[in-house]
Amino acid sequence: MLKGKLLEKFAELSLKIGVNIQKGQGLLIVCPVEKSEVAVAISKKAYEFGAKIVDIRWECDETEKINYQFADTKALCDIPKWIIDSREYLVKNNFCYIAIASENPSAFKDIPSEKISKVQQVKGKLLKSFSDSVMNNEIRWCVVSVPTYKWAKQVFPKSKDPEKELSSAIEKTMRLDKSNPLSAWNKHIQALQKRAEFLNKHNFEYLHFTNSLGTNLTVGLAKNHTWLSAEEMAKDKVKFVANMPTEEVFTAPHKDKVNGTVYSAMPLCYNGQIIDKFSITFSKGKVVSCKAKKGEALLKKLIETDNGTKSIGEVALIGKDSPIAQSNILFYNTLFDENASCHLALGKAYPTTIKGGDKLSITELKKLGANDSIEHVDFMIGTKDLSVIGIDYEKKKITIIKNGKFVI
Amino acid sequence: MLKGKLLEKFAELSLKIGVNIQKGQGLLIVCPVEKSEVAVAISKKAYEFGAKIVDIRWECDETEKINYQFADTKALCDIPKWIIDSREYLVKNNFCYIAIASENPSAFKDIPSEKISKVQQVKGKLLKSFSDSVMNNEIRWCVVSVPTYKWAKQVFPKSKDPEKELSSAIEKTMRLDKSNPLSAWNKHIQALQKRAEFLNKHNFEYLHFTNSLGTNLTVGLAKNHTWLSAEEMAKDKVKFVANMPTEEVFTAPHKDKVNGTVYSAMPLCYNGQIIDKFSITFSKGKVVSCKAKKGEALLKKLIETDNGTKSIGEVALIGKDSPIAQSNILFYNTLFDENASCHLALGKAYPTTIKGGDKLSITELKKLGANDSIEHVDFMIGTKDLSVIGIDYEKKKITIIKNGKFVI
Repeated sequence: MLKGKLLEKFAELSLKIGVNIQKGQGLLIVCPVEKSEVAVAISKKAYEFGAKIVDIRWECDETEKINYQFADTKALCDIPKWIIDSREYLVKNNFCYIAIASENPSAFKDIPSEKISKVQQVKGKLLKSFSDSVMNNEIRWCVVSVPTYKWAKQVFPKSKDPEKELSSAIEKTMRLDKSNPLSAWNKHIQALQKRAEFLNKHNFEYLHFTNSLGTNLTVGLAKNHTWLSAEEMAKDKVKFVANMPTEEVFTAPHKDKVNGTVYSAMPLCYNGQIIDKFSITFSKGKVVSCKAKKGEALLKKLIETDNGTKSIGEVALIGKDSPIAQSNILFYNTLFDENASCHLALGKAYPTTIKGGDKLSITELKKLGANDSIEHVDFMIGTKDLSVIGIDYEKKKITIIKNGKFVI
Repeated sequence: MLKGKLLEKFAELSLKIGVNIQKGQGLLIVCPVEKSEVAVAISKKAYEFGAKIVDIRWECDETEKINYQFADTKALCDIPKWIIDSREYLVKNNFCYIAIASENPSAFKDIPSEKISKVQQVKGKLLKSFSDSVMNNEIRWCVVSVPTYKWAKQVFPKSKDPEKELSSAIEKTMRLDKSNPLSAWNKHIQALQKRAEFLNKHNFEYLHFTNSLGTNLTVGLAKNHTWLSAEEMAKDKVKFVANMPTEEVFTAPHKDKVNGTVYSAMPLCYNGQIIDKFSITFSKGKVVSCKAKKGEALLKKLIETDNGTKSIGEVALIGKDSPIAQSNILFYNTLFDENASCHLALGKAYPTTIKGGDKLSITELKKLGANDSIEHVDFMIGTKDLSVIGIDYEKKKITIIKNGKFVI
């Protein structure tokens, strides 16, 4: 539904603010087959900005679902080496990439979760070198979204024109409704940066999360952790914004210092299936139990993926007064929902959330408390009555979030 | 426009008659992004027939055109090795593949033909090992078509619903309008087989083509040539039909024994551009001159691609009473147009059109007169007044085609 000038602006933001494409650079666009007009718009703009070449990797929920339905797990796990090489090619040749994340949240709802988990586990291992490069900012990347019909229908089931409604919601979160979206983004980036600086100055040892759902969780932060926000620096010293929209400040928890129970605040869409109304209990950083009203088997499979999915690798703070939270829309899409709510992530920590972490080995990162895994799955915990208290190394307490909103 | 039961039947024909998919076999579908419903239908049917896994390679005219427009030739020629490996993977793992050829015939009409030719030349060289495997029936493959809007609009420019009209034309050529398309195909395959047997029995040394356009061409046939038709045998001894529709019988000309001038009977769509009203003069098998009212530069570039594009590698006979010829539709798509008209192909000969040719080296094939090239481009020469006379090794003449129709 994004079209004309608006689609052009969208493409411009993805390229200039998002991956910050440089002259002579290659670009990969990961695009759903039903949204080729978006790939066309981004391609054209990319060349305007001096791109060397634009490649597209097309994705199709429907044929992927058919494979999950009818191929056996062994065949699904038989990933050709050229697929791995195609990812490595991006890193070696300093491509940047824009992923359009517009999956139908229930694309795979009838598929046994064990089958999906098994395949994801094998894929995750084979592609770990690439996903490590991405999480370590070795290449510049950006995730954006455009509405697709099936996704929009799930967000606005009663709407006569769900794609239009979702498009309008996305436009607002992308600041496309501003007269000058580029400068609105630059202002926004500065504001989030200030918040991260405040948290870095205080260098908290622990965060304590509580709310009326029953959440009572202490999250130790990794040694040498650093809070990041929208704008990050890639290995080539060029800045970029990995998620658009983004409203979060985030850092690395200590993988062995998380204790207590946390309740989900929103459904989690994982591999085309939904996990909802769940709680997870941690002891010394590890999950010791979990429950879910919906998708419990899938949640358990997720936690069992590898050693690293039993701990968390990210803690992110977002106020309930963020524009996305205020929209009161449940997007069923992590890119949006994670920006409406404080969240944690099971799995790998971003090495960049440790000072100098992009130059450390995984063993060195682990010593500081940064988690490693083939997965990184955000889940939302921020409610309107959430309280987050920071405790520094002198045991001094500072309230960071009260009734869901930042008070710093 | 193909949908419902008709689309299912289409998928069934492509799989059963076309690639003749076997239990436990992998399938690749090459599909335009705007026709994902066709990939979905073929995928489902493929699993019904026992496919192990179905991969899709998506294609998009529009983003490809943008690349041709804005990327420089060097960047376009920088083909990653993983792309070559992805093709080799199919051969090594005995996948079969179905290509849906539905390009907009004028997709690249504003692109300088030198640029396209240069890129195609580099690609052709890099992918030669794969295309050799295809032409040598090392894997089973089938080219089919479904209407896309831009293609249909070019075929039926004045129609209110060009996609529907093109769809209906394709249904007829695919025998989808028959009550039992599968048995109609089996009958058709037998009929073409008989024609090939007749030609093989006579073992002609030369064919002589004449018509009122000015065509006067003698085509020597390769030593040990054999006439093939619809159904071929792949390396794994499983039969398949490489083109659907198909109305031709075809064999290998002798690359050094073609003399005279031939006039085109229909426009030729090559790399998204059109070459029309052209003539080519041969001496001792090589092109010595060519002219075209439209696309002359592109024709010359095609001929200059490599040594092999200066000679022909296929001669195919089709009667003007074939269903496609009788439809009087100019499809601007080789899959259809080549089945409405006798044709020749510049470039590589199918090794299988030489007896035992699939086991011969390129040097051995060349000794017998079979041409080699990175290209294989059909062009149509059959008019309603075409005469084709066969001359055997005893100089005995037999009229094969008179006034465009088979008389054998």
